[in-house]
Amino acid sequence: MSKLRVVVWNEGQQEKSDAAVKRIYPDGIHDVIVKALNLHDGIDATAATLDEPEHGLPAHRLDQTDVLIWWGHQAHDAIDDAIVDRIYRRVLAGMGLIVLHSAHFSKIFKRLMGTSCDLKWREANDKEIIWVTAPGHTIVQGIDDHFVLEREEMYGEHFDIPEPDETILISWFSGGEVFRSGVTYRRGMGRVFYFRPGHETYPTYHNPTVQKIIANAVHWAKPTATTVARYGHQKSGPAA
Amino acid sequence: MSKLRVVVWNEGQQEKSDAAVKRIYPDGIHDVIVKALNLHDGIDATAATLDEPEHGLPAHRLDQTDVLIWWGHQAHDAIDDAIVDRIYRRVLAGMGLIVLHSAHFSKIFKRLMGTSCDLKWREANDKEIIWVTAPGHTIVQGIDDHFVLEREEMYGEHFDIPEPDETILISWFSGGEVFRSGVTYRRGMGRVFYFRPGHETYPTYHNPTVQKIIANAVHWAKPTATTVARYGHQKSGPAA
Amino acid sequence: MSKLRVVVWNEGQQEKSDAAVKRIYPDGIHDVIVKALNLHDGIDATAATLDEPEHGLPAHRLDQTDVLIWWGHQAHDAIDDAIVDRIYRRVLAGMGLIVLHSAHFSKIFKRLMGTSCDLKWREANDKEIIWVTAPGHTIVQGIDDHFVLEREEMYGEHFDIPEPDETILISWFSGGEVFRSGVTYRRGMGRVFYFRPGHETYPTYHNPTVQKIIANAVHWAKPTATTVARYGHQKSGPAA
Amino acid sequence: MSKLRVVVWNEGQQEKSDAAVKRIYPDGIHDVIVKALNLHDGIDATAATLDEPEHGLPAHRLDQTDVLIWWGHQAHDAIDDAIVDRIYRRVLAGMGLIVLHSAHFSKIFKRLMGTSCDLKWREANDKEIIWVTAPGHTIVQGIDDHFVLEREEMYGEHFDIPEPDETILISWFSGGEVFRSGVTYRRGMGRVFYFRPGHETYPTYHNPTVQKIIANAVHWAKPTATTVARYGHQKSGPAA
Repeated sequence: MSKLRVVVWNEGQQEKSDAAVKRIYPDGIHDVIVKALNLHDGIDATAATLDEPEHGLPAHRLDQTDVLIWWGHQAHDAIDDAIVDRIYRRVLAGMGLIVLHSAHFSKIFKRLMGTSCDLKWREANDKEIIWVTAPGHTIVQGIDDHFVLEREEMYGEHFDIPEPDETILISWFSGGEVFRSGVTYRRGMGRVFYFRPGHETYPTYHNPTVQKIIANAVHWAKPTATTVARYGHQKSGPAA
Repeated sequence: MSKLRVVVWNEGQQEKSDAAVKRIYPDGIHDVIVKALNLHDGIDATAATLDEPEHGLPAHRLDQTDVLIWWGHQAHDAIDDAIVDRIYRRVLAGMGLIVLHSAHFSKIFKRLMGTSCDLKWREANDKEIIWVTAPGHTIVQGIDDHFVLEREEMYGEHFDIPEPDETILISWFSGGEVFRSGVTYRRGMGRVFYFRPGHETYPTYHNPTVQKIIANAVHWAKPTATTVARYGHQKSGPAA
Repeated sequence: MSKLRVVVWNEGQQEKSDAAVKRIYPDGIHDVIVKALNLHDGIDATAATLDEPEHGLPAHRLDQTDVLIWWGHQAHDAIDDAIVDRIYRRVLAGMGLIVLHSAHFSKIFKRLMGTSCDLKWREANDKEIIWVTAPGHTIVQGIDDHFVLEREEMYGEHFDIPEPDETILISWFSGGEVFRSGVTYRRGMGRVFYFRPGHETYPTYHNPTVQKIIANAVHWAKPTATTVARYGHQKSGPAA
Repeated sequence: MSKLRVVVWNEGQQEKSDAAVKRIYPDGIHDVIVKALNLHDGIDATAATLDEPEHGLPAHRLDQTDVLIWWGHQAHDAIDDAIVDRIYRRVLAGMGLIVLHSAHFSKIFKRLMGTSCDLKWREANDKEIIWVTAPGHTIVQGIDDHFVLEREEMYGEHFDIPEPDETILISWFSGGEVFRSGVTYRRGMGRVFYFRPGHETYPTYHNPTVQKIIANAVHWAKPTATTVARYGHQKSGPAA
């Protein structure tokens, strides 16, 4: 079986401009995620960033991407709408999409959800405890009933998303809030997973449990053998 | 209790340009739906059409609309994006939206769904039998287990929509196809109901069962007392 | 419009045997809920308890019940299976069911869910903060974005229930857990709402917000005009 | 990777008593399905039938079963309740369950659904056209947008099941009915797939598309690595 082709997209701005972020992610958030994924035999992960031509996502590359992982924060508006369209069509055609943390406000996630994707937030070194609410789900395979991030940014409900197909993780924050931190959707023939953790000033993507969930999600989100070929070419019905 | 304020929006083009449509809907599709709704004590329905200033949907009117009903077909692209934005925000703030027939391809429906909303279709005088799949649902209150439209345009699966919150009607067509003809979604604080029937060359909106379902859907889709007031102003979390 | 006929069922054992419970609910948990509901013009609530003949739920009474509210804890096994069957059939025929707190382990809830309905729990005076995750929902109409119960029993995930049709409330506990505290389901033609709060040693059902949610849920869960008449008599299909 | 251990259970009565059934399935419905599944490298399928001790499902065998496939029709009531309990617990612990055709009325399916699972039906050589409504789903991988069974028993809506997690197949019948023929659920840590076709007097399980869907469903329904180990032993929450 050939490897899953994964592209980890990161806007990659604060790693350059902010010393605190640079210290944790000297080669970028994308670099840590790519390396963690490539420890898995079945995955071939590479990175793409905002500053590359076409944000690193030219059509020929996206056409050969099985799963796209997306981290963005301050530069959502800098993404070319034509690239967003390209990703959108590719998701509907079967590419998996994993949306991380502050990418809840990315153009592509808002477009796929059809809602504001707004939420409450606070940067205050909250402790976060993430609970598994669907223990038999592929994405939490090998994960205990909960795991702890000692320091994270708080995200709180109401999270303005459509009712998820599946709610598989819910977070507790020491400040008193809760949040649906792992939710799945199907859009067209593609699968979408939103995963909350990962503020840029905390070492969250170095956490082995976080890495494992992302790797599990890659396998869950992969296209089926037939998705790409068929999409967008609906035939007329049979003569009964 | 004050009446529900319903606006029935119709592009209203083919009623002018096409004699066959004009014969069935001399005063427009909107007129038939408005009159049917106003037979109900609790509903105050009015019409709006494409050719009016701001398509008949200025902010002050939309702000006082509880449920918007939308019929469009050939003029989807003629809708001003600013008006679509206005409707979109209003749905998230709690206004109900009922999307009829070919409005599956309207800008507002595609935006709220996050998918292509594509489907198969054929104009061939198919017979349509519509089956109730959620008999306890408010929208099918008083409807028998199925009803028949002797002639309709065929819409067939795959209908490229998100997995519905509820699938309450499924159509059978004499040509051999099926279609999820009544599906519900929640988007923000608003409720969305897609209802399939209503090709402009058939007298579908004169059908009492179709009229009853639309009236039921108006009641189902109405905002709650608190939706509009609260939306868009999320407070920070409590100090625990 | 005639009033909604609501029966508040309570096993009513600990109010007799346990001084701490008796102090808070001298006339039983059911009595507090009945009185709170009867403050609403549209509701006619009465009580039923375990010790009555047929547990207070003879067929002729259940046949005239629109919404049944259920609180149980220690006596789940004491419920006659024939009465459970009767309730079950009545829910499928359109009666609403509101399941409170420890009734997650009631026979009727487990039967309607098809799962173990197991959960984590701890009696330790946890503080509970309950967050609204579906702000446009009828059941949380008039409720702020969260409310606080200063002392409650902890219920924690994983809550072994089917993926809810809607998740509308999620709880935070001071001990570090989260819980899906308000979830809805449709079973047959009936609607089911599970609502977590209400340990017998805390004055939870005296809380006005808790009372308001239960009253909202009664309206949400009520049968439609046609449910009872139609259920269980499926006709053969039409000759096409 | 070791093979998936699949047990195909069949009541196997009509193959003995009814010449028409015997002609199509001389060695039983189970035999055709087992042989079709064993053409796949990753599957090790065996059969079990009603007449065996413990219906062929002793605890030690079920404990080593990854996916159970169930066909039943006339003998639902003959299944020992203790065996049903055993299967039920095993599904909640992660075993996949594929429920075929008339097994909609099996004890295990009704128990997992919490509804009557009633439907309309007619034996009249209807033509059935089955449409894919979730083209990106694993279970319909490699399946065209529809497939045809020239003769089948009709099943019609309303199918009294909970709102499915996913509706992936809908059938059209020449007599005028529709039916949700492929629906998925999660129960505990196990996955459940109901698949409609397969009346005993038609050669449906010889159909390559039907066989392919069942094989796809086996892969979809398989347990995750951790499901069995963890279930039923919920730990108390963390000290925050």
